Amino acid sequence: MNKQTSVLAYLSAKNCSNQWAFFLQALGKELNEAMPAQDVRVLMRQIGLRAGAEMPLSDCNTVKDIQAAANRYWSEFNWGWVELTEQSSSLELRHFCAPLLQAFGAQAQSWSPAFLEGVYQQWLSSLGAGQALQVRQQSELDPEHSFIDFRLSL
Amino acid sequence: MNKQTSVLAYLSAKNCSNQWAFFLQALGKELNEAMPAQDVRVLMRQIGLRAGAEMPLSDCNTVKDIQAAANRYWSEFNWGWVELTEQSSSLELRHFCAPLLQAFGAQAQSWSPAFLEGVYQQWLSSLGAGQALQVRQQSELDPEHSFIDFRLSL
Amino acid sequence: MNKQTSVLAYLSAKNCSNQWAFFLQALGKELNEAMPAQDVRVLMRQIGLRAGAEMPLSDCNTVKDIQAAANRYWSEFNWGWVELTEQSSSLELRHFCAPLLQAFGAQAQSWSPAFLEGVYQQWLSSLGAGQALQVRQQSELDPEHSFIDFRLSL
Amino acid sequence: MNKQTSVLAYLSAKNCSNQWAFFLQALGKELNEAMPAQDVRVLMRQIGLRAGAEMPLSDCNTVKDIQAAANRYWSEFNWGWVELTEQSSSLELRHFCAPLLQAFGAQAQSWSPAFLEGVYQQWLSSLGAGQALQVRQQSELDPEHSFIDFRLSL
Repeated sequence: MNKQTSVLAYLSAKNCSNQWAFFLQALGKELNEAMPAQDVRVLMRQIGLRAGAEMPLSDCNTVKDIQAAANRYWSEFNWGWVELTEQSSSLELRHFCAPLLQAFGAQAQSWSPAFLEGVYQQWLSSLGAGQALQVRQQSELDPEHSFIDFRLSL
Repeated sequence: MNKQTSVLAYLSAKNCSNQWAFFLQALGKELNEAMPAQDVRVLMRQIGLRAGAEMPLSDCNTVKDIQAAANRYWSEFNWGWVELTEQSSSLELRHFCAPLLQAFGAQAQSWSPAFLEGVYQQWLSSLGAGQALQVRQQSELDPEHSFIDFRLSL
Repeated sequence: MNKQTSVLAYLSAKNCSNQWAFFLQALGKELNEAMPAQDVRVLMRQIGLRAGAEMPLSDCNTVKDIQAAANRYWSEFNWGWVELTEQSSSLELRHFCAPLLQAFGAQAQSWSPAFLEGVYQQWLSSLGAGQALQVRQQSELDPEHSFIDFRLSL
Repeated sequence: MNKQTSVLAYLSAKNCSNQWAFFLQALGKELNEAMPAQDVRVLMRQIGLRAGAEMPLSDCNTVKDIQAAANRYWSEFNWGWVELTEQSSSLELRHFCAPLLQAFGAQAQSWSPAFLEGVYQQWLSSLGAGQALQVRQQSELDPEHSFIDFRLSL
């Protein structure tokens, strides 16, 4: 590893609370063996929907408001931050520095981001996004990237 | 609440990492609705068995050694501490200050301690406890108590 | 120690960030040797005045508002909480669960609470308390107590 | 800021405990105004000497042993890590990810690294470095760098 890489690796590892990392890693391994990845993905999305419902976004009139309200929660919980960009037929969400890889490990990369998918789905639906609009993960969670892309679209 | 009670409530709440409490509360609610408490209990015990296997106890010749080795992990992870007492036909384990109630909520008290049951089962089996010896929870996890009792016996 | 006492001792100790406890203990020892306790006390009060100025209290019309605004900072920083009570000729402030004893040690109890004295002085002056009104510590910081009393009066 | 830079800035900021950052920033400002930078530097070095004495390094026969023993403390306290390199007439120490800049601010860069200078001085003297050998800071603490260089030499 070069210097920059080891600094990022160190800071990313320490950024995940060691009170729960040992528990979450064991949880991830157990879920990986107990059910197909697709089912764990559905479970994580469900958990995200519930977590989103416990973190109401209020007084959001613009995309910028939504981003600010979301980031108040993410900053409080030390879950990184999100950047929202409006496109003609979609809303793009780029989430930086989520502690998912440190918590659940590389083995969980096919399902752990579904938690954030659920949170964003819940938030955007509660703000009036039609039922036909779905949040879907667009990029991998891997050690090379410090962000994950999601998209709200038909 | 009297003063002592509110101090304990404050310190106990802050003692659970807020990076994961919001996630674990949503996880607990989802599991509560998705399956019977007995199945969640089995899942938590499985997770505990896995976590215990990742935290090997080495060089333990006495009950006191086991207690010290266990508490090195619990202190590092801020999971409280355990006190072990040998009885004629059992080993008693009293675990103080686990962050389970803060993490999973009162709704999860019937199953969340099974995680510790699994960890202790794995540790004691790996140190030579016969297959017939089982770790079982002996007391409730509730806000009145800051400890949970477990017992290794036939 | 009985059970309750060891639980409180454990939670209080863990409640002070171990990233800085080793630094602050050494700082406290150095200050204790380098200057008289009264001078360290003045230094701590100065630091508190500065810290208070960096944490403005806004929109406070009542004592209850002040308490709520103060506790938003204390909760964010995990510095316990304060309870304010208006008396005929004074304002009483009782601060619970400050991490001062864990950080600076028992040797510093004659001066470490002056930091909070400074913060409260700054806050109450900025909200309009006359220059003649001073915040003064009223009770000891010791392991038997989980709070410190301050008073704003002539 | 580009993406990499903002990720590093975020992780570095969150890596300093927010329980003490507000206190340490006020402490730094007060010291900056109360005495010349050179005197604060001496104070910080003294604090480092004391902190080092509280963290004994044992069983170190090689430079690699020293590095490992030092990093057990730094990892436990989340103070980054150090890399030691032996040269013909010096020992080079490169300390990564110390939370000094986040704690004391850019205004303190002329004196805050003296704390680490003191710790390393104490450690290396206790391991037998002659009194003539001094640890001295060799590089700046600035946002562009995630490490500080020290050297033990005549």
